[in-house]
Amino acid sequence: MDILTLVGLLAGVVIVLLAMLANASISTFLNLPGLAIVLGGTFAVTLIKFRLPTVASAFRLAAKTVFTDRLPRPSSLILEVGELGRMVRKEGILGLEEHEASDEFLKKAITLCVDGHPPELVEEALLQESQQIAERYDVAERVFRGIGESAPAIGMLGTLIGLVQMLNTLDDPSSIGPAMAIALLTTLYGAFLAQLIALPLAEKLQLKAEDDARNQMLIITSIKSIMRGENPRVMTEFLSSYLPPEHRNGLAPEKEA
Amino acid sequence: MDILTLVGLLAGVVIVLLAMLANASISTFLNLPGLAIVLGGTFAVTLIKFRLPTVASAFRLAAKTVFTDRLPRPSSLILEVGELGRMVRKEGILGLEEHEASDEFLKKAITLCVDGHPPELVEEALLQESQQIAERYDVAERVFRGIGESAPAIGMLGTLIGLVQMLNTLDDPSSIGPAMAIALLTTLYGAFLAQLIALPLAEKLQLKAEDDARNQMLIITSIKSIMRGENPRVMTEFLSSYLPPEHRNGLAPEKEA
Amino acid sequence: MDILTLVGLLAGVVIVLLAMLANASISTFLNLPGLAIVLGGTFAVTLIKFRLPTVASAFRLAAKTVFTDRLPRPSSLILEVGELGRMVRKEGILGLEEHEASDEFLKKAITLCVDGHPPELVEEALLQESQQIAERYDVAERVFRGIGESAPAIGMLGTLIGLVQMLNTLDDPSSIGPAMAIALLTTLYGAFLAQLIALPLAEKLQLKAEDDARNQMLIITSIKSIMRGENPRVMTEFLSSYLPPEHRNGLAPEKEA
Amino acid sequence: MDILTLVGLLAGVVIVLLAMLANASISTFLNLPGLAIVLGGTFAVTLIKFRLPTVASAFRLAAKTVFTDRLPRPSSLILEVGELGRMVRKEGILGLEEHEASDEFLKKAITLCVDGHPPELVEEALLQESQQIAERYDVAERVFRGIGESAPAIGMLGTLIGLVQMLNTLDDPSSIGPAMAIALLTTLYGAFLAQLIALPLAEKLQLKAEDDARNQMLIITSIKSIMRGENPRVMTEFLSSYLPPEHRNGLAPEKEA
Amino acid sequence: MDILTLVGLLAGVVIVLLAMLANASISTFLNLPGLAIVLGGTFAVTLIKFRLPTVASAFRLAAKTVFTDRLPRPSSLILEVGELGRMVRKEGILGLEEHEASDEFLKKAITLCVDGHPPELVEEALLQESQQIAERYDVAERVFRGIGESAPAIGMLGTLIGLVQMLNTLDDPSSIGPAMAIALLTTLYGAFLAQLIALPLAEKLQLKAEDDARNQMLIITSIKSIMRGENPRVMTEFLSSYLPPEHRNGLAPEKEA
Repeated sequence: MDILTLVGLLAGVVIVLLAMLANASISTFLNLPGLAIVLGGTFAVTLIKFRLPTVASAFRLAAKTVFTDRLPRPSSLILEVGELGRMVRKEGILGLEEHEASDEFLKKAITLCVDGHPPELVEEALLQESQQIAERYDVAERVFRGIGESAPAIGMLGTLIGLVQMLNTLDDPSSIGPAMAIALLTTLYGAFLAQLIALPLAEKLQLKAEDDARNQMLIITSIKSIMRGENPRVMTEFLSSYLPPEHRNGLAPEKEA
Repeated sequence: MDILTLVGLLAGVVIVLLAMLANASISTFLNLPGLAIVLGGTFAVTLIKFRLPTVASAFRLAAKTVFTDRLPRPSSLILEVGELGRMVRKEGILGLEEHEASDEFLKKAITLCVDGHPPELVEEALLQESQQIAERYDVAERVFRGIGESAPAIGMLGTLIGLVQMLNTLDDPSSIGPAMAIALLTTLYGAFLAQLIALPLAEKLQLKAEDDARNQMLIITSIKSIMRGENPRVMTEFLSSYLPPEHRNGLAPEKEA
Repeated sequence: MDILTLVGLLAGVVIVLLAMLANASISTFLNLPGLAIVLGGTFAVTLIKFRLPTVASAFRLAAKTVFTDRLPRPSSLILEVGELGRMVRKEGILGLEEHEASDEFLKKAITLCVDGHPPELVEEALLQESQQIAERYDVAERVFRGIGESAPAIGMLGTLIGLVQMLNTLDDPSSIGPAMAIALLTTLYGAFLAQLIALPLAEKLQLKAEDDARNQMLIITSIKSIMRGENPRVMTEFLSSYLPPEHRNGLAPEKEA
Repeated sequence: MDILTLVGLLAGVVIVLLAMLANASISTFLNLPGLAIVLGGTFAVTLIKFRLPTVASAFRLAAKTVFTDRLPRPSSLILEVGELGRMVRKEGILGLEEHEASDEFLKKAITLCVDGHPPELVEEALLQESQQIAERYDVAERVFRGIGESAPAIGMLGTLIGLVQMLNTLDDPSSIGPAMAIALLTTLYGAFLAQLIALPLAEKLQLKAEDDARNQMLIITSIKSIMRGENPRVMTEFLSSYLPPEHRNGLAPEKEA
Repeated sequence: MDILTLVGLLAGVVIVLLAMLANASISTFLNLPGLAIVLGGTFAVTLIKFRLPTVASAFRLAAKTVFTDRLPRPSSLILEVGELGRMVRKEGILGLEEHEASDEFLKKAITLCVDGHPPELVEEALLQESQQIAERYDVAERVFRGIGESAPAIGMLGTLIGLVQMLNTLDDPSSIGPAMAIALLTTLYGAFLAQLIALPLAEKLQLKAEDDARNQMLIITSIKSIMRGENPRVMTEFLSSYLPPEHRNGLAPEKEA
């Protein structure tokens, strides 16, 4: 998932840059004061709307989503927890200690199990952890939607300022074109920031929150099953019934076994 | 349904093409860089928002809806399951094996019955299948709505870029018109993509999801009735009470019989 | 209701026509290719979104609403069912047979009673009929809202096409004005279709669905009361308590009686 | 409340008039055909959407809100019903007969009590009255929101008509400015009607419906308490606990008494 | 929180001012009649929509949020109520009297406890207080959203008025530019007021209402626990389980103790 988010971000930027450079130099499209208005204004508005730690946490979460974070697929998670179930059957709960979990949340679940907490407490702690992760995604999505709403508005404000300045100095007709071009740049920056970065990221954070929540429910269900000492095969079969058929391939043999 | 979706798509394209060619050659409206910005930019944004397999699955589902897929009408489905009910009465469940079902979902339901699974398991499997189909429609609709929102915005971005380039080269007055025309083309492409293709397809996918879900409930209800060995005539009468009166024509005689 | 809907439609058209003809001939505003783009494009999009029978049924329902259909007022309905109650008391259920009902739904209810069906079955049949009528209104409203959303967008597309054509032929300055006027006409057609016809009709269909549902509940309630042989005076009093006070005039004497 | 609504309406009109007259005569902004398009077109659309009696009732309710209607404050209502409670304790229910109620709804409540209806019937009648008042507010709000949506659209239609007329008569360059000014006037009328009158009135009707409903619940609660013969002091204390602290001033002494 | 809200407001204003002054004097952007239209018109509309006391209370709440108000962090609140719990264990309820609470709501809670009211009454009074605070935030948010919707519309109205005036006096071409610049200023004022002040404040009031409600629930929960004489350590542990892990630092030692 992460790779394509990054690819999408870069592709959008490259396409727009190529379009710009096709008939003009980059300096035509670079207006530092205009950029300062849009970025600074949007940041100022974001500071009023949210708190600084909230904004920082939203950017960290988005960066993680774009650059490093990879959610395990539900089917590989099911295989992994099936494996864990077999380990517990052979070596007891403590056998989990050496397992290298592919997922942060699963790692936390294993630690809680190995620490010997009672099942209800493990479940409650995982549910609360899951809810706090969901809230963090939600507030990050709100921050990026907020940016996606403010940036075009601030860009339009910049264009209005530029137009007013231009209209007051109509003496030199040859300057009208470039002055208007510069005035339009802030609208361009705002639309770029909103449409190619902030709004798509907000949408992706929402989708990723849904996927993550699904994985977490799957982990909580399986950990409860493992702590109750249920048959790993039955557990795998039960979990895989929640997958769409095309994702059950790797899991099929165990069902027949 | 499929035929008219395709007719609608083609009619929209043809009408717009005729309008374009009425007073100009096609080359006036063909600007490959502009097309690349709109298509490439929209695709980049879609990659950020969704995952590649999700996008691919949305396009497959839309293509199926437009080109090949035809939902059976509820009234013909009722006739068909009534027929199945009579076959089971005569030849037992295994008599269904030779039936050529008109619908994928009905085919799956028959296979589950013939395989000898208990009724509750058949129902649960069909309900889960139905829910996964609904989720696939839902995500496909979100993809096309996403395209319908991004394409005009990217088109406007392209027009802004074109305007800025034009305004910086106002020396030759005779070039203003064509340059502005080219700048407007990306807005035109974006509006075309959104209004004549992406948004109507999203709407159609939503309506088809509703129709499909209704058919699936009808099939699940009738399969349960057949497995319980109920009278096919009673079942047909019960099912047809959910149809609007004008669709009950073919079913009337059985009610009186 | 119908009369004023028709008056409103005609008044809107006449006002716009007068405004057009005040300073120009009708030929200024008549552009057949432009009209073809807007009507054809909107129809193509509507075909993609909905199915042909759905669209046809929406237009039939709207035409009925505008031209012929008149909902009886709740107060006159209450008087009518009170009359029916007295007839049943005097002559039995079969006394209803000669009654000329002022409303389709009431006619169906009387037929069901006279046919001798048991009360529960009559009620269930009427409730199902009522729900199907509600669904038909709902889908018709969706069709007209869809037209109201697509028409302005298609109109804008036509204007963009016209602008691009005009900008490529700026040689003759005297042709700019009329060419631009023609380009604007599709936007005008789209806005006219959406704002003066499609969207108001969608709103009216929604309101009429609410009024119709209220009448139908009133009829179902009163038919149940009549079949239970309740006192018509008590029934009238009970029903009229759901009317706003200013509509109870004709019903008052019976309350005191 | 009413006074400031009227002040707000007049202030908005005066501010806009002053802005118009600052640099031009009123005749510049008065275009009777344009005014006829916007007012007539909006009225025609409103006639299609709603029924004439509904529209008339919405205007009556809005006029009442602006010119004459004054809702009593909850705190003065609590004092008044406390007074009523004491009167009933001293002189019985019939003692209420001479009380001049400050509120229509309270007057109706007192009449119902004095007429000797049983408490449940009084409560039910008041609840039904309250619901019908709420529905009247709701439909009035819908009418004004409808006007607020249609007026700018009709205004834009008028501007499009004016532009097309102007573009067809570009021969005389000196007429372009005034012709375009006239074309813009319909947009100005539509925006004025929507933003300074219809939409704020819709918002105010919504808020007033909320306040009125709160007063009515307070009256119903207190009338029930009075008919049960409860201690007026306890009732006052109970009712005042629903007020924000800053509005309890006048009620404090009775709490301590 | 407050500091950064103020910083954001000032930063937005400064950025826009710098952008204005970069190429023009401030007089270019100062048009007192235009400012009067936007501020006066928006105020007039706000007066129609809301009542004067409501508007005044909304501004007071916003000013408090921006300039003086600081919500305590949940973690420091937990430490504080833990301290209170220990004080009550040592010195009884009256020991709270000398505590300087960091929060208005906590101060009120302590006063209610010290006054000797029974626990249920304290809880009910605090819940009602909490709900009234929530309503005050809600109405303040509605006022600022209302301003954020009206200001750009009034600004556009002012620009239309300016354009009409300008178009009627096209005689002097050199005056077109400045006249149009002045016409655009009202749109600029409206966008500025809405995008940099009113809408962000509305958003912040909404977020602060959520934070405040969370703090109030925490205080109510802890006061109930203290009045029941529960172990302060158990209470702290219970309360801290609702914090995200990164905020539990200062609370950890007590858990282990």
